[in-house]
Amino acid sequence: MKTPGMLFDRLSAAASQQWTLYTGHAFVEQMADGTLPEAAFRHYLVQDYLFLVHFARAYALAIYKGTSLQDMRAAHGGLKAILDVEMDLHVSLCAQWGLTPEALESTPEARATLAYTRFVLETGLRGDLLDLHVALAPCVIGYAEIAAGLAARPGALDENNPYRVWIGEYAGRDYQDVAAAARQTLDDLAARSLTENRFPHIVKIFRQATRLEADFWQMGLTLAD
Amino acid sequence: MKTPGMLFDRLSAAASQQWTLYTGHAFVEQMADGTLPEAAFRHYLVQDYLFLVHFARAYALAIYKGTSLQDMRAAHGGLKAILDVEMDLHVSLCAQWGLTPEALESTPEARATLAYTRFVLETGLRGDLLDLHVALAPCVIGYAEIAAGLAARPGALDENNPYRVWIGEYAGRDYQDVAAAARQTLDDLAARSLTENRFPHIVKIFRQATRLEADFWQMGLTLAD
Amino acid sequence: MKTPGMLFDRLSAAASQQWTLYTGHAFVEQMADGTLPEAAFRHYLVQDYLFLVHFARAYALAIYKGTSLQDMRAAHGGLKAILDVEMDLHVSLCAQWGLTPEALESTPEARATLAYTRFVLETGLRGDLLDLHVALAPCVIGYAEIAAGLAARPGALDENNPYRVWIGEYAGRDYQDVAAAARQTLDDLAARSLTENRFPHIVKIFRQATRLEADFWQMGLTLAD
Amino acid sequence: MKTPGMLFDRLSAAASQQWTLYTGHAFVEQMADGTLPEAAFRHYLVQDYLFLVHFARAYALAIYKGTSLQDMRAAHGGLKAILDVEMDLHVSLCAQWGLTPEALESTPEARATLAYTRFVLETGLRGDLLDLHVALAPCVIGYAEIAAGLAARPGALDENNPYRVWIGEYAGRDYQDVAAAARQTLDDLAARSLTENRFPHIVKIFRQATRLEADFWQMGLTLAD
Repeated sequence: MKTPGMLFDRLSAAASQQWTLYTGHAFVEQMADGTLPEAAFRHYLVQDYLFLVHFARAYALAIYKGTSLQDMRAAHGGLKAILDVEMDLHVSLCAQWGLTPEALESTPEARATLAYTRFVLETGLRGDLLDLHVALAPCVIGYAEIAAGLAARPGALDENNPYRVWIGEYAGRDYQDVAAAARQTLDDLAARSLTENRFPHIVKIFRQATRLEADFWQMGLTLAD
Repeated sequence: MKTPGMLFDRLSAAASQQWTLYTGHAFVEQMADGTLPEAAFRHYLVQDYLFLVHFARAYALAIYKGTSLQDMRAAHGGLKAILDVEMDLHVSLCAQWGLTPEALESTPEARATLAYTRFVLETGLRGDLLDLHVALAPCVIGYAEIAAGLAARPGALDENNPYRVWIGEYAGRDYQDVAAAARQTLDDLAARSLTENRFPHIVKIFRQATRLEADFWQMGLTLAD
Repeated sequence: MKTPGMLFDRLSAAASQQWTLYTGHAFVEQMADGTLPEAAFRHYLVQDYLFLVHFARAYALAIYKGTSLQDMRAAHGGLKAILDVEMDLHVSLCAQWGLTPEALESTPEARATLAYTRFVLETGLRGDLLDLHVALAPCVIGYAEIAAGLAARPGALDENNPYRVWIGEYAGRDYQDVAAAARQTLDDLAARSLTENRFPHIVKIFRQATRLEADFWQMGLTLAD
Repeated sequence: MKTPGMLFDRLSAAASQQWTLYTGHAFVEQMADGTLPEAAFRHYLVQDYLFLVHFARAYALAIYKGTSLQDMRAAHGGLKAILDVEMDLHVSLCAQWGLTPEALESTPEARATLAYTRFVLETGLRGDLLDLHVALAPCVIGYAEIAAGLAARPGALDENNPYRVWIGEYAGRDYQDVAAAARQTLDDLAARSLTENRFPHIVKIFRQATRLEADFWQMGLTLAD
């Protein structure tokens, strides 16, 4: 009998070095204790908005590549969550700095934004739905895991931590459910087209994607363009 | 000064022979006067459901290929209209014949369904957004034009015409607005990337797509698989 | 231990009805005994030239989707065989009717040409390399099987059979080797990403592609546009 | 009357800041005077081999996206130059360090390799042939321009400059012809589908691609992974 979320657990174990660097990145640690400079968070958040534009494109690609209405409707759920909910959160957080949606959209993409997003999209076009979802997983599932870890720390959700909204959002029930569904999707797709021969190939995708996610934190921390 | 809907008008004029065969097809005529055999309409409607699955994929592709959030949100409107509205209409109409959504989805695709849908999708992948929307146009805009024409005939919307629901749906304000927006999209995309050198190329796409749409009526009329 | 060509044999057995209609089509029978009208063969050959243009695109897509240099070089072999050899054969055969390459390329595509080629290409874009090669198989491997069957019949290769060149070409060692390599490719790809859960999905692709190939013979026989 | 290579000149002028940083990068300067550390060149060359694998995929994509046999054959020329010539040069240069083709292919991709290659490929899939060729241009045409500039410097091709082979290769007639053809391709594609409205969009692609190319030199210089 298989455990739910099994493929994700195998992947993060196989890429444990990259996974640890990503989930334990200094950017994350500094959100937990509130020491992250606002400029770093702001740089991150603006780039994350641009990131979400391309993630919406990735979910649209998942709809296109679906082999059943069920596949398509599941991916459509992800697309709507980004376009109708997650991006609005960014817009409202960025409004406090006087940034309009137009200003956000016209900000040049940092290297780290461009590298991860195009990698995900191209991986999905080159391969199949499993390849695409494996490339998305470090983001979708990783954020839930990171935020749940941070939320459990004493003081992380205290009123005086400026990052409590971010932590609370991704540690909250709604987003944790999204991540749980993403784990299930990986298992479902694995049941369709994953053989042991193929496993090293998807580990490689997962490892590259995780590294690119850690680079995204680093971009925020160093204000890199 | 350019007239709204100009590109569509140029395309349908350039492919007038195919356009007339499509919009004046016997299937359509027989819907207007109510003489279309129910078996033909039913065969058409079931295949049209399968068609819509692929059209939803085409709108997802348009989101993926968008170059701005505005492009993406516009295509998302089209996707939602298919997945959340148009397919439900088919499901409710087909329910009268005892057909479940599962039965619809598992019906084998007729040649005409397969030919048009894959042509549209592949055209969009090979080319750009304009190519994709030109391939979609005979369906999206053509249905509005056909239904408006039928609705204007005496008796077409009478209670005893079994096809009044279909005619009323596509002749109605909501769908006419969808078609008007599709005309505008064509003009907007033309302003971006249409040169006179390219015009013959998109006429070819439009002509092929229109012919494949006429084949779709013919498939319904002859119950072809 | 697995038998070489195993996947192809499983697929053609699972789609045996469509396979028989395709490989035993009247067009083929009439090539064997030389009774096929020249107009039918000519119509077929011109459309087959257009078909090859898209098949070259399909092999280019296989290069793009390759996950190793070995994958890419194998697909490149297929591409070169089409662009540098097979299309030249068509050009030289069509020259006897005064048809130039330009005239061939500008001939409108028949429905059957369009339907099969776009199905193959879109299947490859939607799915992975296995999906793409399964969609190609009825053509690539089927032609070798058909021609070998015809060549074994008394008189099929006689000098007075106008179709002996076609039969000899596809029954010859070079093309039989191409087909054997295509069988091996299917087995290699299956070892990577075929599970029993997925088998019905690729049977569906194979069945649709085989039906579209039979339609291609029928198009030749009836001079359909 | 239009000057050949006009579009490329407009693009490099519009992105002159990025173009100068790329073509005048320290890596390039140090090749000219022979001071580049061998380790930097070796790191660059191994990554460039991986880069070429994806560039071959990009040319395959250009074949797939071609709208005529002429488009397809032109892109096939580019593909063959990479797979059959340019990669062999890398293999023979790397052999001096005891690196086999297998060792090259299994080297992990550096961030800079991954970022540029996936950007090019995804840009080509999202857009049309013009978008794809604009993304390729900083590499294809830039190398010819850089090498021609280096070759003109006193001593750059002297026997004691270890980088004279690289400089001579890309400054040589064959590669200069490749770059001239690429300039012409850009003009041809512009004549098809470039409007002034679209120009800012392709400048953005060109600017991003040029920046990613400069990052590639920087990766070599700093031995970044």
